[in-house]
Order: sequence, then C-alpha cells, then structure tokens
Amino acid sequence: MSAIHDLCVRARAAARAMSTRTTDQKNALLRRIASDIDANARTILAANAEDVAAADARGIAPAMLDRLKLDAERIQGVSRAVLTIAELPDPTGEVVSKVTRPNGLVVSRVRVPLGVIAMIYESRPNVTSDASALALKAGNAIILRGGSEALRSNLALGAVVRGALVACGFPEDAVQIVPTTEREAMVELLHESELVDLAIPRGGEALIRFVTENARVPVVQHYKGVCHLFVDAGYDTQAAARIIRDAKLARPSACNALECLLVHEAEASALLPLVRDLLAAEGGELRGCPRTLSLLGVTEASPHANVVPAKESDFGFEFLAKVLAVKVVSSLDEALVHIQRFGSSHTEAILTHDVAHAARFRAEVDAACVVVNASTRFHDGGELGLGAEIGIATSRLHWRGPMGLESLTTMKWLVSGDAHPSGVRKETD
Amino acid sequence: MSAIHDLCVRARAAARAMSTRTTDQKNALLRRIASDIDANARTILAANAEDVAAADARGIAPAMLDRLKLDAERIQGVSRAVLTIAELPDPTGEVVSKVTRPNGLVVSRVRVPLGVIAMIYESRPNVTSDASALALKAGNAIILRGGSEALRSNLALGAVVRGALVACGFPEDAVQIVPTTEREAMVELLHESELVDLAIPRGGEALIRFVTENARVPVVQHYKGVCHLFVDAGYDTQAAARIIRDAKLARPSACNALECLLVHEAEASALLPLVRDLLAAEGGELRGCPRTLSLLGVTEASPHANVVPAKESDFGFEFLAKVLAVKVVSSLDEALVHIQRFGSSHTEAILTHDVAHAARFRAEVDAACVVVNASTRFHDGGELGLGAEIGIATSRLHWRGPMGLESLTTMKWLVSGDAHPSGVRKETD
Repeated sequence: MSAIHDLCVRARAAARAMSTRTTDQKNALLRRIASDIDANARTILAANAEDVAAADARGIAPAMLDRLKLDAERIQGVSRAVLTIAELPDPTGEVVSKVTRPNGLVVSRVRVPLGVIAMIYESRPNVTSDASALALKAGNAIILRGGSEALRSNLALGAVVRGALVACGFPEDAVQIVPTTEREAMVELLHESELVDLAIPRGGEALIRFVTENARVPVVQHYKGVCHLFVDAGYDTQAAARIIRDAKLARPSACNALECLLVHEAEASALLPLVRDLLAAEGGELRGCPRTLSLLGVTEASPHANVVPAKESDFGFEFLAKVLAVKVVSSLDEALVHIQRFGSSHTEAILTHDVAHAARFRAEVDAACVVVNASTRFHDGGELGLGAEIGIATSRLHWRGPMGLESLTTMKWLVSGDAHPSGVRKETD
Repeated sequence: MSAIHDLCVRARAAARAMSTRTTDQKNALLRRIASDIDANARTILAANAEDVAAADARGIAPAMLDRLKLDAERIQGVSRAVLTIAELPDPTGEVVSKVTRPNGLVVSRVRVPLGVIAMIYESRPNVTSDASALALKAGNAIILRGGSEALRSNLALGAVVRGALVACGFPEDAVQIVPTTEREAMVELLHESELVDLAIPRGGEALIRFVTENARVPVVQHYKGVCHLFVDAGYDTQAAARIIRDAKLARPSACNALECLLVHEAEASALLPLVRDLLAAEGGELRGCPRTLSLLGVTEASPHANVVPAKESDFGFEFLAKVLAVKVVSSLDEALVHIQRFGSSHTEAILTHDVAHAARFRAEVDAACVVVNASTRFHDGGELGLGAEIGIATSRLHWRGPMGLESLTTMKWLVSGDAHPSGVRKETD
C-alpha cells in the first residue's frame, strides 16, 4: 500500500468519526487549535524562517516571498481566523426541506459533511490552518498539499492542528499534510476517487489546470478573475470613478479586482479623463481601445505616460497589477457581447440607473457573481456574509462563488415510515 | 474543428439562449414535444423496429431487448412523461437566499440553469426524451450519447424534439444526439471541459467507470445500489416480512431493490422462515450466513431448494434478481459495521421501534438515502416528491439521490448596491 493511499484510507476513517461530532465539540476543537497556534508561535516561525531562507536563496520573487513569510503579527491573524470560524453557524444537520407525502411518508433532506477534501495550494501558509478549520467545522477530514516552498511551515502548522485534534479527543488523521511535494504523489492523491470526495486547487492557473487534467476525483476550480465593469449611459461619472478606483487600485492582486472597463460612449468623454488621472496618480497604466485614445487625445505625436494603445491580448487578460484595459462601447448589447467573449465567469459589474438594463445584465451575464452599482471587490466571502472562505469557485457544479462552510457539505435524504401503515410501495409503473 | 467539438460549441450557444426563456415558453415547448412524439409515433416505431431487429440478430439478451423495444403503448408513456415534466415547477429564478448587509448592499443567491449537460446512457430510448425534457425545463442544453443498439431510435426521437424546438422558436441545438457511438467520440466529448458543464453516465457499472476514468468534465455518477435492510430487535416480524417482500421482489432489477437483509438475533428465528417462504413462493433464493442456515435447519444432509450458504462475495453484491443475502447480527453496531463495509451509499434501511436506534442509523449511515420503517424502494424521484428524475446519484458532490430538475441547476450570486452610498468596499485586510 502506497503512502498516499494509506493517508487517504486514514482520512476516510477520520471523516467517518468527524461526521458525528457535535457543534460544541467542533467549536471547542477550533478554539484549542487557535490557542495552540499562539502557544507554538515560536516553533512555527522557526520552520517558516527556514522556508523563507531557502526560497530567498533560490531567488524567489519578492511578492512570493512576502506571501510565504510569517511574523508574530501574521501568526495572530492566523489564529484569529480560526476563532472566527468557531463562531460561524454549523451548516451540518440543517434540515433543508421536509415534506409529508400523501402516503404519510416523511421525506427530508439534511445537510451532512462532504467527507474527505484534498486541498492543493501554493505559497500562503495560512491556507493550511484556514482550510483545516473550515473543513473540520463542517465535519470533514482534509488532506493538505501545499507548495514545496512552504512545506516546513505547513508541516509545523499541521503538527499543531493534529496535536489539538488529539488533545480534544478527535481523530488525528482528520488533518494530514502530504509530506512530499513530488508531482507523482499529488497525481496519486487526485486518483483516489473512492476515498477523496473533492479536490480544491487554489493558486496559479497552471496549477489549477494540472489538477483538473489529472484528477479522477471531483474538482471545484478557482480560475482567474477577468472582471469587467460596464458604466452605462446616464451614470454619474464622479461616482463611477470612485468605484473604478476601488475596484482597480485597492488591491490589484486580488482575483475580484477590475481588469477591463467598458464605458458607454455617452459618458466616455467625461469619464475617461477621470480614469486616466486616477491611474496616473498611482503610477498605473490605461490600455485603451482606439476610441478611448482618440477621446483622450493620445496619439503617436502626442503620447501620455500612463495611456497606451490596448493590444488584442489585453482584453480577457488578468493583469493583477495597476493596469486597466478600457473600451468604449455603443450599447449595453455591445458590453454584454464583450463580457461573454472575454469574461472568466468570475465577477462582472454594471453601473446603471436603468432598471431594465440592470435586469438584463443580471439575467444574461453568466458569472459566479453579478454586481450592480458597486465594486467588483464585493465578491468576497466576508462581504457576502459567509464569514470565511476557502477560495472563490468559478466552477458551475456543486458550488459557485466564495466557498464557505456550506460549500463543504452535501445532502442526505431521510425517509421515515413511522406514520406510514405498511412501509410498502404501491407499484404504479 | 472536430465534429464533436463543433457540436459542443453549438450546445454552449444554445444553452446561452435557453437560459433566458420564460417558464411559460419552456412549458409550451414541452407540450409541443409531447404532441409531436404522439404524432410521429409511426416514424419512431419504424426506427425502433430496425434497432430491435439488428439487436436480435446480434443475439442480445432478452431482458436488454425488452428494454430497447418500443410499442404504441410505450410511446404514449414517453410523451406522457414529457407532459408530466411540463407540469413541474420551474426551479430557475428561485431566490435561495437574500440578505441586506450592514453596509446596505443587497446580496442574493438565485438558481440558474447549469448550462450544457452530456448524458451518456444505454438501452432505453425513453431516456432520450426524459433527459431532454428535464434539461430543457431547467433551461439547459443537452448532448445525448446513447448506446449503439438504440441509435436509430434515439436519432428518431431526437429529430422530433429538435423539430419541436424549431417550431417553438427555441435553438435547435439545445438537444443534440451524438451521431456516432464510437468510444473515441465519447472520450472527446468528455474532454470538452470548457464547453460541457456536467456528464451524467447512466447504465452498467463498466460504462460509469469508463466515463469517470476518462472524463475531464465534472461527472455525477449513478453507481449500483447494494441496499441493506436491518430488522431490529422488537420489530413486528409480519410487518417486516411485508416490507422485505416489497423491497426484494416487487422489482428485483431496480437499483433501490433490497440485496442484503440483516436480522437481529432476537427476531431471527421468527422472521427467517417467513423470508424463506416469501422467496420460495416466487422461485427466489436465500443465501444465508451460517447462523441463518442453522436457524432454518438447512444442512448438507437436510438441504432446501431455495436456501443455500452465502459465499463471501454474496455480501456487497448487487444481484438485481430474486436472490437475497441474509445475515444474522447481534446488535445495531454489527449491522452498522456491515453496511459501512458492504454498502454502496445508495439506499440503506432500518426497521425499528427504538427511537435512539433510528437516530443513530440516520446519523451514522453514509448513503444518499436513509430509510426508517419503510421499503428501500421509496428512494425514487416520484416517491420523494421530485416528480421526475434523470437517475439516482451516488456521488457526494453537487447532488445526491434522485436527480430531478433542481439537480440540473446551479447558483449565481447577485450583489446590488442600489441602496449603498458609494459602492466602494471598506478595506479591512
């Protein structure tokens, strides 16, 4: 029996044990995990320092290094996130529907834990504890396979979580860190369709594609967010500029950040200078369509430091930087066609005072989240009221949007014949 | 561009058009499909007769031949099934949750069509129209890949459905029959992860495994039903025998039929003779554990025509015939362990008057449907109130149990800042 298969077998057994724990027991466990993370901060930081040193020596990008790095303050953030999850309502046990059938049979659907979750991720070590806490709170077991650059940090955090599981009388194997980051081991894990119920890849597009291509277990993807905002005719341009600044510049690296602005021609001449200026003020770049450049008076003869012509490949591109593609459109229909062609079904927004336009945008745009008159940044577990999330799903199946506790559960049908005379079905077919 | 890829591209475009049709429009379409099936009965029957003759010439099993065969009465059943689906409530547009966040933002989750569904199935041509009607009613496009033995029947039914789509102003490509049954074409279809949202295999275990192993698109499986019934101490043995007769003998070929009876030792001596006799009365067979044989007085020296020793492989086996594996157990715990080891997570039942035992069985048994004091046969879309089903899912992800209209939808988050002053997020992280 391979090491990975053995790990999955133990996860399945642990999931079974997890599924009957009470909410109070699970909350006590999460509080214990949080306090154990604080108590073991020094050990975790020492392991993390080794990861950081090794990554630095290999010449990792500064942004990656920053995401990898923990310090005393970030450790506090890590434990606080676990405490937050302890305070969320437990989705399991919820009776989603209950009816009494004409024959007296009582039929209900109840929410139950999903089972065994495999989390495949990169960089940030806090995913280890966040994902563990969410999985455990929903009554599941989780197998964590992080990136090689964070292996020591993940193992240290995992050891603390496993210690807390044992201390609280829970099965230790409800949380397991894959001890190797070899690709073969990950593929083996992704083939365990009898033992793993769901794989959640989170990270760069290459990782997510690799998991999707190689998995025999179900996958809920977290693909990129090529988010659009359409400013309709008649919308106040000052308000639009405020929302655009928030959507593009507040955190350009976020998946719900704005990548492409579509402006109705009626507002273009008023709005585009504001957009140019707000980008220029932060050293950003506007990549405009020909109409945009013309309205801004940017030509080869009269260039602008922060305004350049958009290449075809700039549309449908996730910049994750202070770069914004801009296109002037003549109608809502043209905006809808552009979004259908270039959007990534993540987050799409419209600013409009036209109720019919808002309704069409809501109905016709195919995305996990459709936003009217607000920033794309609101597509976030906390903002939507889920409390905490394991990522934002761009899949259509099972779950779409921020994956909170409910997304880590499934349903069970319960049929009860207590009130039913014979318990025997009348054959009609 | 390959023929299969082209078919998927057209399905995606059709799905987009389908998603904005009203309930009334979709119901009118379904009524048209039903009447067109009746009106074209002769053409469909002629195509079916060719399929039947070819299958007969190849020496197909009589049971398979019967499933393939249509006649005037069955055609009526086919069109009536479509009408039934027209009468079901439309799940799309349902507002599943709606909250106003503290910042004034209105956040809702609404049910929307899933998109493009690929149905992979065997034998019964009525699946072609049933699956089409369910997919269309939920606002989807569907690609149907039936078995080679039914290709002519499926193409004939598909042509009628496509004719009705055109007549009602719907996109013809919302329903497409894969015109070849080559495996390569099916694999190609199962790799179209950008265009196909869900594959539903329905048929023998080999087909389902093949689809699961080869798919890059999400799959909801319909594996076998190795259904157990545990008769607890104190349960009336006459009532138990009635339920066992229903569960085992009413339709042994059904996936929700009983395959293994677990009897508490306290009731074994009273119940087992009844079970032996009800099986014997219909020429069935009881395959008993050593305690069962001993209680029934069956030995090598004193055999019984309808009672034989169970082999190890009889437990966990789906007989789909008038054969019942029987095991005497000493406790609820022993029954739970047996079900955990040998069950297929399809349907598991208990007969008990002990409320605590019923509660433990409900909580601890991991199955799509857990039945208390009734027959396993109640795990059926019609009986559970769904009206019609495309199959019974044994997967945990996305959907579990009978797949009715709701299972062919997904969710979309809608965020509205109409009441929100700035539409700008307050950065807290």
